Amino acid sequence: MQPFTYCNPTKIIFGEGTVPQLGTEVSAFGKRALLVYGQSSIKRSGLSETVLSSLQEADLAVLEWPGVKPNPLLGHARGGVELAKREKIDVVVAVGGGSVIDEAKAIAAGAVTDRDIWDFYARAVPVEAALPILTVLTLPAAGSEMNGGTVLTNEATQEKFGFMAPPLHPRASILDPTLTYTVPPSYTAYSAVDSMTHLLEGYFTHGDFWAPIQERYVEGLLKTIMECTERILAKPDDYPARSTMMWAATLAWNGLANAGLGAIELPNHMLEHPLSGIYDLPHGAGLSVVLPAWLTFAARKEPARVAQMARNVFGVAASDEAFTAEQGIAALRGWFDKVGSPTSFAKAELPVEEIDKIADHAVRLAATWGITRYTREDIVAIYRLAAQDQPAPATSSL
Amino acid sequence: MQPFTYCNPTKIIFGEGTVPQLGTEVSAFGKRALLVYGQSSIKRSGLSETVLSSLQEADLAVLEWPGVKPNPLLGHARGGVELAKREKIDVVVAVGGGSVIDEAKAIAAGAVTDRDIWDFYARAVPVEAALPILTVLTLPAAGSEMNGGTVLTNEATQEKFGFMAPPLHPRASILDPTLTYTVPPSYTAYSAVDSMTHLLEGYFTHGDFWAPIQERYVEGLLKTIMECTERILAKPDDYPARSTMMWAATLAWNGLANAGLGAIELPNHMLEHPLSGIYDLPHGAGLSVVLPAWLTFAARKEPARVAQMARNVFGVAASDEAFTAEQGIAALRGWFDKVGSPTSFAKAELPVEEIDKIADHAVRLAATWGITRYTREDIVAIYRLAAQDQPAPATSSL
Repeated sequence: MQPFTYCNPTKIIFGEGTVPQLGTEVSAFGKRALLVYGQSSIKRSGLSETVLSSLQEADLAVLEWPGVKPNPLLGHARGGVELAKREKIDVVVAVGGGSVIDEAKAIAAGAVTDRDIWDFYARAVPVEAALPILTVLTLPAAGSEMNGGTVLTNEATQEKFGFMAPPLHPRASILDPTLTYTVPPSYTAYSAVDSMTHLLEGYFTHGDFWAPIQERYVEGLLKTIMECTERILAKPDDYPARSTMMWAATLAWNGLANAGLGAIELPNHMLEHPLSGIYDLPHGAGLSVVLPAWLTFAARKEPARVAQMARNVFGVAASDEAFTAEQGIAALRGWFDKVGSPTSFAKAELPVEEIDKIADHAVRLAATWGITRYTREDIVAIYRLAAQDQPAPATSSL
Repeated sequence: MQPFTYCNPTKIIFGEGTVPQLGTEVSAFGKRALLVYGQSSIKRSGLSETVLSSLQEADLAVLEWPGVKPNPLLGHARGGVELAKREKIDVVVAVGGGSVIDEAKAIAAGAVTDRDIWDFYARAVPVEAALPILTVLTLPAAGSEMNGGTVLTNEATQEKFGFMAPPLHPRASILDPTLTYTVPPSYTAYSAVDSMTHLLEGYFTHGDFWAPIQERYVEGLLKTIMECTERILAKPDDYPARSTMMWAATLAWNGLANAGLGAIELPNHMLEHPLSGIYDLPHGAGLSVVLPAWLTFAARKEPARVAQMARNVFGVAASDEAFTAEQGIAALRGWFDKVGSPTSFAKAELPVEEIDKIADHAVRLAATWGITRYTREDIVAIYRLAAQDQPAPATSSL
């Protein structure tokens, strides 16, 4: 194990019917709340009424900041910062998925500084303070409800950048699995891919040392997420599956999987951000395009850990390491296909002819994140692998 | 999944050479520190010098409260409370294993109230406030470094009682695996048993519902703890094994394994506390006496989950559930024997003729903890199973 510091103070309130606890939790942090949300879906579902009445019963003054986009935009977040400053907001409440929570974090950080918030995302300065953030989660995927991470897209430059900072940990997050019953099949699949990729980044990129705690944690959660997804696609209101998926997605990216792994890299996020940043693709859909390609590229040099995933998650029992790895990648890709998350440029309707432009973005992100392992040629090669429509594997363990 | 609230704000600072960070961490919480520790071993090892110089460099006034016993005693803790009040202590620093940390928590809670601290342990009143607690861990087992739990023994009544309360979460805990190099083989084994039992209490006692996150988490950590223990017994300064063991023991009892499991019970702790409370046996040694017996008792009614452990942890591949469970218990007992933790009254030098008296204590603890599933006859029957010296299993998977 490598040295680490781990601190995750977010209070998780989990279970059906927990949303009315929001007001009491928020009122511990101030009197004036900014309610951040996305589209009108929370109005239609009745969630917004439950949220507003809970906040009002706790004597909070509530201002609303709707209209957060699925890949949240810098301009909109800047508007939220202005509003929060002008209205002397004490506390930011996000109701939605990772995008809404991420923009709420941007607003919370921006509200207590005179700097432009993009400076944080471009890593020019660190976030050292922020307004308190509380969340009600409606889409399990990003893990933002229990971590200090946030991602924004700069619409002027098409850059999709992100960072982590301790002050951005939500003070409390309410996870009611029944709020996810209406997540459609496509987004259920994208969410699964997102969570699985969160788990696999550290698993595949940590150094060459014994890490049984973290690897078994990842393998167990991967199997659980796949089981949940299949149950949910068969029965959208399957409470055991929805609730298990919700907690698994949180555990996948709350820092625990990587504690003790030392420096890890996020190559798949580096490769995906340009896709969702430029083409407004759902993040999970972009990840299922790049992950099998990245794995194929990575396994050429180091098949051992890919083979381990193949054995422990997909039950592949080949004796040769490289072949085992290959079978594991085929099984993962086959599973993405099965649940309906795209596994190639064509399936995601991405323009193969723009790989050069996409690679430029990835190279810039690699530099921002300090990832030095990949040349521009490597990055292009991985996108070209993702642009191939590979045949389904001859045999699949699923 | 069942509803739950989870909040674990303890900051973990993990790695070789991290103890000198203590002073800075402590100084965030006050000026006057009470240093709680056990025997002279931290003096001999040089750890106390590192601790003291770190505290002094951070301009802290340090008072010492040495002499905590392995099963910490109420009377000694009361003395610490008096000292903390008289000296207007701001912050309590525990340097040691679970016993030292548990007594430090008692002192921290007692220092801010006029009540006698035993009222907390007898569950007459809850702990609602405490001085800040920071720890330097020297024995991975109890998990007290990252939870709100504490256990004390009342020497007047021989009652060993415990409870959990949010204010008792340490603010920060320093985990330097090299501090555990000198833990002798016996205590290395007891620690493993302690951590494994922490994991298994919830695994075996949660309700009849799908819990793949928690069960896989437990199964993975059990395998990891067993692997670490065997490596450490072969090579006491095996850093990968010591460090992995240290983090695994923390993760085994920091609340995560049981989040979502609903109401669980601690039957093995209920059965063990009288043993270490009356006979001053190491807690882990008492647990390896009662756990195989309790499993045998439990598997008679419900073999399925014991069989699951047998399959997923010990690789037992029998087709019959009851027989699989039996083989799993034999494998676990065989492993305890192998690493040198006692598995019967005789091996632990406990008096079989005092089972009635021991059972009286367990019945009282069951009432205090609200465990209603076991009659006095059940409890006696389990102790009698633990009093049998069973033959080693014919075949073992280990």
